[in-house]
Amino acid sequence: MSIIREKLDQAISLLNEQTLDCWVTFVRETSAVHDPALDLLLGFGLTWDSALIITRGGAKIAIAGRFDASNIRELGVYDEVIAYDQGIATHLRERLSRLNPSTIALNYSLSDPGSDGLTFGMYARLSQMLAGTPFASSFVSAEPIARRLRERKTPTEVERIRRVTQITQQVYADLFAASVRGMSEKQIHVLAGELIAQHGCDFGWERVNDPIVNAGPNSSIGHGIPGDLTVEPGQLLHIDMGLRLDGYCSDLQRMAYVRRDSDDAVPTEVTRAWRACWDALEAGRAALKPGALAWQVDAAARAELVRQGYPEYMHAFGHHVGMNAHDGGSVLGPRWERYGDLPNKPVEEANVFALELGTMVDAVGYIGIEETVLVTSSGAEYISTPQRELVVL
Amino acid sequence: MSIIREKLDQAISLLNEQTLDCWVTFVRETSAVHDPALDLLLGFGLTWDSALIITRGGAKIAIAGRFDASNIRELGVYDEVIAYDQGIATHLRERLSRLNPSTIALNYSLSDPGSDGLTFGMYARLSQMLAGTPFASSFVSAEPIARRLRERKTPTEVERIRRVTQITQQVYADLFAASVRGMSEKQIHVLAGELIAQHGCDFGWERVNDPIVNAGPNSSIGHGIPGDLTVEPGQLLHIDMGLRLDGYCSDLQRMAYVRRDSDDAVPTEVTRAWRACWDALEAGRAALKPGALAWQVDAAARAELVRQGYPEYMHAFGHHVGMNAHDGGSVLGPRWERYGDLPNKPVEEANVFALELGTMVDAVGYIGIEETVLVTSSGAEYISTPQRELVVL
Repeated sequence: MSIIREKLDQAISLLNEQTLDCWVTFVRETSAVHDPALDLLLGFGLTWDSALIITRGGAKIAIAGRFDASNIRELGVYDEVIAYDQGIATHLRERLSRLNPSTIALNYSLSDPGSDGLTFGMYARLSQMLAGTPFASSFVSAEPIARRLRERKTPTEVERIRRVTQITQQVYADLFAASVRGMSEKQIHVLAGELIAQHGCDFGWERVNDPIVNAGPNSSIGHGIPGDLTVEPGQLLHIDMGLRLDGYCSDLQRMAYVRRDSDDAVPTEVTRAWRACWDALEAGRAALKPGALAWQVDAAARAELVRQGYPEYMHAFGHHVGMNAHDGGSVLGPRWERYGDLPNKPVEEANVFALELGTMVDAVGYIGIEETVLVTSSGAEYISTPQRELVVL
Repeated sequence: MSIIREKLDQAISLLNEQTLDCWVTFVRETSAVHDPALDLLLGFGLTWDSALIITRGGAKIAIAGRFDASNIRELGVYDEVIAYDQGIATHLRERLSRLNPSTIALNYSLSDPGSDGLTFGMYARLSQMLAGTPFASSFVSAEPIARRLRERKTPTEVERIRRVTQITQQVYADLFAASVRGMSEKQIHVLAGELIAQHGCDFGWERVNDPIVNAGPNSSIGHGIPGDLTVEPGQLLHIDMGLRLDGYCSDLQRMAYVRRDSDDAVPTEVTRAWRACWDALEAGRAALKPGALAWQVDAAARAELVRQGYPEYMHAFGHHVGMNAHDGGSVLGPRWERYGDLPNKPVEEANVFALELGTMVDAVGYIGIEETVLVTSSGAEYISTPQRELVVL
């Protein structure tokens, strides 16, 4: 069964679970502005005003410009595909009148980017088209369904994430097997791009900082664009890379220590920090189970790192991974303004999270660890093969 | 000078020209929902609530999460880059208070997708953050600046479009030189993908239908996804392909006729239709000059095709090409509902348009032509090398 068919069935279940009548995804020129819900509901782009209508009763209706409608028909998952030439408004009004929903869920959300694909202009356009009908005052946020539809992975989705994660590990293995000593961040970035292409994958986020490469202590940590710093003995090499394959993404960080001739082993301050990061990650993973609130999972990891004498990381501990490396939805993070309401959501079974945290080792470089886990009924199991030991170059 | 610096200078001129005080691009998680204005104002993505503030007086201020701020600083075009950890609201209120603009232009537009990157959720979030300040009631649409900023190409932009267009023509030459007779649409689609990669380019739109390949009369015209139909003698092969290089796109259609053993020449009904399409395209191009209204250009092309006895094409004659294959902004199209107000805009110097139209030849296939032109002070000159004759395979 195709992913789209699976997700549409799941969407209808969610409309019933959340007692919403009707979900309307209203888009245009999605190559310019892409509504993330389209990935779940269609799998390709649309050009003119288009509406995907899904109801609690199981109706699946698409209205689109003539040149897009044929692709929707080919997909074979919408029961009714209406093609228009000049404008969508009359078709939309007519179809909604027939369905007569008491609520219309639209893709907007204060907190969740993945449920917020409706632009302000398209909202205004829809309001204009439905002016004078009862529907213009029946809009509600589709977040309760759009967010869960993305968060609750089907078995097919979990398999795709597992596969792209495994390939990412292979790319890392190839990369560390190459002679990266003395290479610049930019050179490693280029090499990684070649390896990703060789493995038939796309980039998981913008190429410009995928992978992020940090050579040593002077590199810009976070979402930095690789620069001219080179990988030097006695320093850490930190890489954060995401791949995309069959519509699903990976997001993994990997670490290497570059040996000096004088080194008998990895310096103590590095292994001590590495161990503390791993203890914190495992503390967070232990708290990650269905029903836990997202912020509680972050708090468990954060507390362990601080307990061992390291500063708090200034980001969230975990985010969903799926059709995007940052897949929207709940955030395993502190209740900071920037995360809105997302840290207050409960963890659910079949969620897939990237868990990440790190710390700076003075004069040596940044330690960052990031692994991928699947939430099961009893806890969180690894999808990635955890990097328990530093690679020594 | 970098494109971003050029476009920021242009943006400040436009704020003055359009007498708007301040332009705020407010985004988050742009890997999930991408505001097209970011391509013009930054060139890479942002993660948490971020604001790019540009004023009529020439201020260029960025406020972003700590892990993104370093990339903005590296770019070196914003005078002030403010990094935050927990939330943007206080920084945003403070900075706006200091600037004290009487209007704040936001990225929303009923008609123009390229000026409509602000989501409804982000609009609501911004309104919340500015509640109780005079700024919450000073929002206006940034379309007058965002649209023109995209439409008016700088010389650097024109050169990039020219280069990617030339490479696209080379890919077409390679493709037609390969033995595509008997190949399926899907096989040609795969081969084109390999050639595009060999030329170091990316796809101009979603890979799934880039290129669009139509083999013969039974293929789905428009935005169809390539299928299993094969290129047969006595039929037309129609391809619509876009490439991306250095952030700029091409969008070109090319045509071949597949010779039968019995053919002395291309059949008359094909050459007649080909000629009519070309006459119509040239009639439209003749009408394309600064000050013409966009719909008038379409009307000139449309009328010529109809005059020669062919049906109207059910789309617009022309669209901007630039950072996207469909670059938003004014539309050289009929005043149909789906195009909103965009056909009423005047053509301007330094606009770059794809001009396209076509017709069906019964039992033979679709003829589509699409070329790229630059509007100069006196008219429209070709950027592409026009395909005046059908390729015969």
